[in-house]
Amino acid sequence: MTFAPLQNDTFLRACHGLATPYTPMWLMRQAGRYLPEYRDTRARAGSFMGLATNVDYATEVTLQPLERYPLDAAILFSDILTVPDAMGLGLSFALGEGPKFARTVRDEAAVRALAVPDMEKLRYVFDAVTSIRRALNGRVPLIGFSGSPWTLACYMVEGQGSDDYRLVKTLMYARPDLMHQLLAVNADAVAAYLNAQIEAGAQAVMLFDSWGGVLADGAFQEFSLAYTARVLSQLRRDHAGERIPRIVFTKGGGLWLAQMAGLDCEVLGVDWTVNLGQARQLVGDRKALQGNLDPNVLFAPPERIQAQVQSLLDSFGAPHTGPGRGATHIFNLGHGISQHTPPEHVEVLVDAVHRLSRRAVG
Amino acid sequence: MTFAPLQNDTFLRACHGLATPYTPMWLMRQAGRYLPEYRDTRARAGSFMGLATNVDYATEVTLQPLERYPLDAAILFSDILTVPDAMGLGLSFALGEGPKFARTVRDEAAVRALAVPDMEKLRYVFDAVTSIRRALNGRVPLIGFSGSPWTLACYMVEGQGSDDYRLVKTLMYARPDLMHQLLAVNADAVAAYLNAQIEAGAQAVMLFDSWGGVLADGAFQEFSLAYTARVLSQLRRDHAGERIPRIVFTKGGGLWLAQMAGLDCEVLGVDWTVNLGQARQLVGDRKALQGNLDPNVLFAPPERIQAQVQSLLDSFGAPHTGPGRGATHIFNLGHGISQHTPPEHVEVLVDAVHRLSRRAVG
Repeated sequence: MTFAPLQNDTFLRACHGLATPYTPMWLMRQAGRYLPEYRDTRARAGSFMGLATNVDYATEVTLQPLERYPLDAAILFSDILTVPDAMGLGLSFALGEGPKFARTVRDEAAVRALAVPDMEKLRYVFDAVTSIRRALNGRVPLIGFSGSPWTLACYMVEGQGSDDYRLVKTLMYARPDLMHQLLAVNADAVAAYLNAQIEAGAQAVMLFDSWGGVLADGAFQEFSLAYTARVLSQLRRDHAGERIPRIVFTKGGGLWLAQMAGLDCEVLGVDWTVNLGQARQLVGDRKALQGNLDPNVLFAPPERIQAQVQSLLDSFGAPHTGPGRGATHIFNLGHGISQHTPPEHVEVLVDAVHRLSRRAVG
Repeated sequence: MTFAPLQNDTFLRACHGLATPYTPMWLMRQAGRYLPEYRDTRARAGSFMGLATNVDYATEVTLQPLERYPLDAAILFSDILTVPDAMGLGLSFALGEGPKFARTVRDEAAVRALAVPDMEKLRYVFDAVTSIRRALNGRVPLIGFSGSPWTLACYMVEGQGSDDYRLVKTLMYARPDLMHQLLAVNADAVAAYLNAQIEAGAQAVMLFDSWGGVLADGAFQEFSLAYTARVLSQLRRDHAGERIPRIVFTKGGGLWLAQMAGLDCEVLGVDWTVNLGQARQLVGDRKALQGNLDPNVLFAPPERIQAQVQSLLDSFGAPHTGPGRGATHIFNLGHGISQHTPPEHVEVLVDAVHRLSRRAVG
């Protein structure tokens, strides 16, 4: 496979700690329900899984936000739960609700029955990666992703989203041995999954530890961070002559940032509770930082959005502009964009980030 | 009003940073649905508000957990949203659901119409405080409480619980002037409310900033912490010759603990994401620390509960045992106890905390 040469490398440069003439940006869930064209495609596909498993639809919706906004990266349109679906748990999305598994993993027999799935079952994802990469034609890099081992475990045990994570935490506190076994399988599966995305054309990969922040101190390190590290240790460092940066995002993980700075990855994503200046002091130039505007800022009028962008850029401080590695920032939201967001406010946001962060690079 | 002399002062001593022969403990939401006797009283009362507004019922359920377990404090049975109810918003609880307001505060007219309510409308709360204090007969101290100004604002704007706090944050980002006005009214109302509880017999008071942790860094300081401080500045420091300790608990506020250490209060509550040893290093002996076991630990078998208690006590380290002020710990959960908790596991917990923390005090 060969692809067109990359025209906008600001995102990848910032991932690697290299200077860029402005702060690159993309948005978590940038291809999604806030866009009317997404809702049209979704309606044609009939269901979320119909959309996510069809290469043409997945390609179409991945590119939709790039047609509207000069974003600096694309992210594969898919779901964080494809891996347990391939394990046979039966993922579905009822209209207007979150993901749901037909089968759950709550006892010893269910845990012992788990195995790394045949990656051929996830071929639709890898085909989508290649298709999107071709369609992008070198405009911006393509990010692949997966849920983290712990976040997958939450859904596998609970069967769906949860307010209190009672079932998954009960298993964890009552039978830590089983939880470790479950997480080990998840980690090896996620690593194989991300490596296959890289081989299919993903130019960066991101682990979404969406539920790491619900864990207690101590439990986070043992049941989330350790398995994120296990994934990272198995990932390809480069492909087709290019280094592949790895991003780790733990929602609610701000208190553990110093420990996350020890992970073998290039970028740490942070949510809006984190002060970017303090985070920069903690991680230095060991990691690029990605984040962290509250998505609800996008409901305010344009001048307030611009003021919040300025304030966020100020809190990070001036990124380095010299040669070699230094502290870099990738602008993003602190979590996925809301389905209720006015699309014209996203335009204001992207313009503000690019304009207000422009700088001379030596 | 005179009450019986206090027999167990370990909780109040720990609040004030004074040594105690063991780590005192109580549980957030200790009078609640996990107790069959609570469910019986609730059934007789007909509704949650019927329970909370009836002095006899409120007294009865407040004392129920103390009949079962040797807890070191009682907490008034009430709701965090009584103050906006008294403002005329119409609080109700549908069976199996959370609180709901009949009227919301989402625009300029609604904000301008708000005022500190006549405290006579909350007389049922103050009467309950006095009744409970009498019924306790000096066994343990009684804690009064309120929701924080920001947490009340969340419910007043959203009208109910929320996943994304979109409406309250939209008001905050779009019209910060209105949000400040709303919060100022809330703060003054909460201060009057807590002072009246103190005058009715509450021996400590606690502010529940249950939703402070959903705010972005910067917004937390401006819209939550500043109004917590405004409440604290108006609170009585003593009553009937006794100092009244003040506890502030921000769920998800661990990243702001250093700033919270500057509050004019005696105790900071922390949730389970916080490492107690690190928190102690941050606050020193300026504040007692309260927390922070994950309530889901109570679903594990007794030996695992005991191991988690030991681990939590170890993470705080040895509390001071000498004369005068020093670092103290009040054991609690990191949030309210789950309605699904087996009551016999609470017995294991209370016994473990008292037994494993026993020490010589010089």
